[in-house]
Amino acid sequence: MKKKNNSKLKIIPLGGLEQIGMNITAFEYEDSIIVVDCGLSFPEDDMLGVDLVIPDVTYLEENADKVKGFVITHGHEDHIGAIPYILKQVDATIYGTKLTIGIIDNKLKEHGMLRQVKRKVVKHGQSINLGNFRIEFIKTNHSIVDASALAIYSPVGIVVHTGDFKIDYTPVFGEAIDLQRFGEIGKKGVLALMCDSTNAERPGFTMSERTVGHTFDSLFAEHPNNRIIVATFASNVDRVQQIINTSYKFGRKVAVDGRSMVNIIAIAQEYGYIKIPDNTLIDIDHLKNYPDEKTTIITTGSQGESMAALSRMAASVHKKISIMPNDTVIFSSNPIPGNEKAVSKVINELLQKGAEVIFQDTHVSGHACQEEIKLIYSLVKPKYAIPIHGEYKHRMAQANVVKELGYDNDHIFMLHSGDVLELDDESADVTGKVQEGGILVDGLGVGDVGSTVLRDRKILSEHGIIIVVLTLEKGCAGVLAGPDIISRGFVYVKESEDLIEEATVLLRETVDDIISRNISDWNKIKNAIRDVLSDFVWRKTKRSPMIMPIIMEV
Amino acid sequence: MKKKNNSKLKIIPLGGLEQIGMNITAFEYEDSIIVVDCGLSFPEDDMLGVDLVIPDVTYLEENADKVKGFVITHGHEDHIGAIPYILKQVDATIYGTKLTIGIIDNKLKEHGMLRQVKRKVVKHGQSINLGNFRIEFIKTNHSIVDASALAIYSPVGIVVHTGDFKIDYTPVFGEAIDLQRFGEIGKKGVLALMCDSTNAERPGFTMSERTVGHTFDSLFAEHPNNRIIVATFASNVDRVQQIINTSYKFGRKVAVDGRSMVNIIAIAQEYGYIKIPDNTLIDIDHLKNYPDEKTTIITTGSQGESMAALSRMAASVHKKISIMPNDTVIFSSNPIPGNEKAVSKVINELLQKGAEVIFQDTHVSGHACQEEIKLIYSLVKPKYAIPIHGEYKHRMAQANVVKELGYDNDHIFMLHSGDVLELDDESADVTGKVQEGGILVDGLGVGDVGSTVLRDRKILSEHGIIIVVLTLEKGCAGVLAGPDIISRGFVYVKESEDLIEEATVLLRETVDDIISRNISDWNKIKNAIRDVLSDFVWRKTKRSPMIMPIIMEV
Repeated sequence: MKKKNNSKLKIIPLGGLEQIGMNITAFEYEDSIIVVDCGLSFPEDDMLGVDLVIPDVTYLEENADKVKGFVITHGHEDHIGAIPYILKQVDATIYGTKLTIGIIDNKLKEHGMLRQVKRKVVKHGQSINLGNFRIEFIKTNHSIVDASALAIYSPVGIVVHTGDFKIDYTPVFGEAIDLQRFGEIGKKGVLALMCDSTNAERPGFTMSERTVGHTFDSLFAEHPNNRIIVATFASNVDRVQQIINTSYKFGRKVAVDGRSMVNIIAIAQEYGYIKIPDNTLIDIDHLKNYPDEKTTIITTGSQGESMAALSRMAASVHKKISIMPNDTVIFSSNPIPGNEKAVSKVINELLQKGAEVIFQDTHVSGHACQEEIKLIYSLVKPKYAIPIHGEYKHRMAQANVVKELGYDNDHIFMLHSGDVLELDDESADVTGKVQEGGILVDGLGVGDVGSTVLRDRKILSEHGIIIVVLTLEKGCAGVLAGPDIISRGFVYVKESEDLIEEATVLLRETVDDIISRNISDWNKIKNAIRDVLSDFVWRKTKRSPMIMPIIMEV
Repeated sequence: MKKKNNSKLKIIPLGGLEQIGMNITAFEYEDSIIVVDCGLSFPEDDMLGVDLVIPDVTYLEENADKVKGFVITHGHEDHIGAIPYILKQVDATIYGTKLTIGIIDNKLKEHGMLRQVKRKVVKHGQSINLGNFRIEFIKTNHSIVDASALAIYSPVGIVVHTGDFKIDYTPVFGEAIDLQRFGEIGKKGVLALMCDSTNAERPGFTMSERTVGHTFDSLFAEHPNNRIIVATFASNVDRVQQIINTSYKFGRKVAVDGRSMVNIIAIAQEYGYIKIPDNTLIDIDHLKNYPDEKTTIITTGSQGESMAALSRMAASVHKKISIMPNDTVIFSSNPIPGNEKAVSKVINELLQKGAEVIFQDTHVSGHACQEEIKLIYSLVKPKYAIPIHGEYKHRMAQANVVKELGYDNDHIFMLHSGDVLELDDESADVTGKVQEGGILVDGLGVGDVGSTVLRDRKILSEHGIIIVVLTLEKGCAGVLAGPDIISRGFVYVKESEDLIEEATVLLRETVDDIISRNISDWNKIKNAIRDVLSDFVWRKTKRSPMIMPIIMEV
């Protein structure tokens, strides 16, 4: 790991900056590349029909022989979700802590890829050597247990990458963040700090996860006669632990609902990250054997996701659980931006069924606020600051916090996805740009839905389609059948028979006129149909459906 | 207005309870109906391509001879937006305060309906007689000037309807809410209070609009060298007034951008609701004649609406204004639920252009919080409470506030749209249900987009369409052309040529097989094509596009 030549370290974020969630960063030094995280994004509103978005890793494919490994900070989808896709293209071992690898294993199993991908468990405090790099895993706190920061030792210096983190002095499970080690590494001299910006707009400190437990105790004490349903994030094992603890304290049995929740609890139990007292967990089918006031249901759906368990209960389409006036439903979560309306919808439905809904004080964030960010910078004292994780406004907020600490603009890098930041102890500059972007996944198709398909879907979604079919005699000697009009998603046909009829007459005239002029170029015929019909439809309806002339020749 | 027989008063909300925004309520006594407000809703996410939603007023049409007038509380879209549509179906005079009627006039003009609809201006404190009813307009405060509560005098008692309101002791324009009159009417004895619930989940009092002016003063003082751009709601004339006041104080010229903003300011100026110092307002084209630090731009787009002026500036597609690093952009607004992501997108774009973005302390709500609601109830002391305006959770929150004041469940009515509440001094009951619902408006089409069209649009938007065309010889003697496959919004065809080819071969076999078996029923052929192709596509892609077989016969 000694420095050769005048090589510099390259830091190349391949996603996660323009597309929130799709976290993946390459670190390159000469013939070695390591990749930190491999996340997916959920589709934006305009990505119609798209299931998820994965990063474009052309750069890694082109340099596949250099890639020494994937190092994963924690088990959230925006850090691990693209693994089953990317590892098909770039083969390397995955490194992470026990629970993180456990969750990845589960994901690979679902994709039938468990055999072909190598995984290795690393403990906090341990290091791994990958080519020119040594990577040390440092204990942090986050809304999922077993999260890590990384100290990345390169021949030209150390980069500290926080992953997603908060500082929790009193975590529910395990140790607090290893602040001593951050200080110790800082004392050695750190080249750059890549720090989580998600909460950088918020002043102060994020509260300890443990505070939520006290609130559960109070709420359960206040509701001795109700069935209690708690909705939260499946992956927040500590939260689930606290709901179970409080339930046990109040003599309640706990049933768990929602596939992802059941999965994660099983993994957490298997690896010892959650402790469930004997005879506390019951099957959802056995709820009926206990009085309501002696049961708790932990469920997914805290974000109003339409197919999640709580949403199905609220909409009366859940097969096993019906909401009743005696229910108290606690949302142990905040709506993620974009989900506000969906969450309100579920709340309104629950209230209309007579349930009580509690939506406060039972959630804390998993991300560091401004004072925590300042603390990490003060321990690590990096030469360069590289705000990561968060929208531009969040990263900009971190930049402003960092400036308060005395950094100038030359030492703060607001990177974009694809930027190649070359740095060593003497300088740091963005020197190039590699291919990056989001690859859309729709069903089994990866990358076969692009801008053309999305544009078509947008037009179809807003105004539907009108199909005009026409059968011509060979050589365009005459019309054998049609033109006929068929529409979908345009207007309710029964109500618009006149409109369609009038359009058909108009098109017949148009086609007859063209044929009579001996025009036999199909494109000309199609264009004429398109022009005449779109004019007519716009004039009559002020809508612009997709118009699709189809000519058959016999 | 004396009581005849044993008739009761009917209160019939025709919208606004299930569909937020579409506020319209009928009050009926014997042969008289009056309608309070006539608003529209904006489409929900699943109403693809729909422009707006108006209430189903079948009940009013069926009782058109009874309808004595439309009484409008204020000029927001969710209270006036459906007027051009409904007044085509139900003819009656519209009553409102001066600015409210001014805004309605503008709307009718745009629809070419100014001549055919009668409007009458009513002053606060005045009453109008409509059949069996007398309606008194009472001054309130809201985020648009000239808002009114209504005291509706019927033969069986008084109903007070607050409209949207807040209590502002120090309004920017005109008087504070006429609390004395609420008290005076309350002393007479009020049958029912219909009170705004929008902020009923929030404790305390809503701040005065005037406080925002002080914040503008501070922000302008802190940014003496920047061009200042303020985005806010077009209809908030008081807000615009305060931005102009502060600009004038700091020697800045003001340009206004965004069509709705320009319109409302023109109306407000014409009717004297806004006072603009001479030589302060300049044309947007003249901005270049002044130094940046001597200009303010007031613009629409505070909700991230993609076509609004600020969004166009942020996306660099505004024809006249480019965002520069010297710009300070103030969002004088809160994101309306559902708009959070769109607003964040605009903020990120502005920050990336180097602008400073300020997003705090320059907005106050226009709706009453819990203490204000308690105050109104304590002045009016109605026999029955009918929470209105807001989602179910907001109305439920008001119900809980009202319970704290000593009301029991029998005196609080959580109505649904279409409910017929019959009441008099002796009793109140929901006795029936009338037709209600949202009518979708898409372009010029009113009601021609229904659930079938929306279902088709949803399928089209998510997976596109595959069209299979086939020309058969008369009597199904043989295939003359096809089957050919054409798709839109399904896959990018260049990438999926094999898939389409394989499907075509499969369909040819299917069709040949059917023809060889002398099946001539087109529906059977179409169903076979649909079954074979959807199976194939699902197996290969895990997608479910719309499949549309078209058979031509020659």
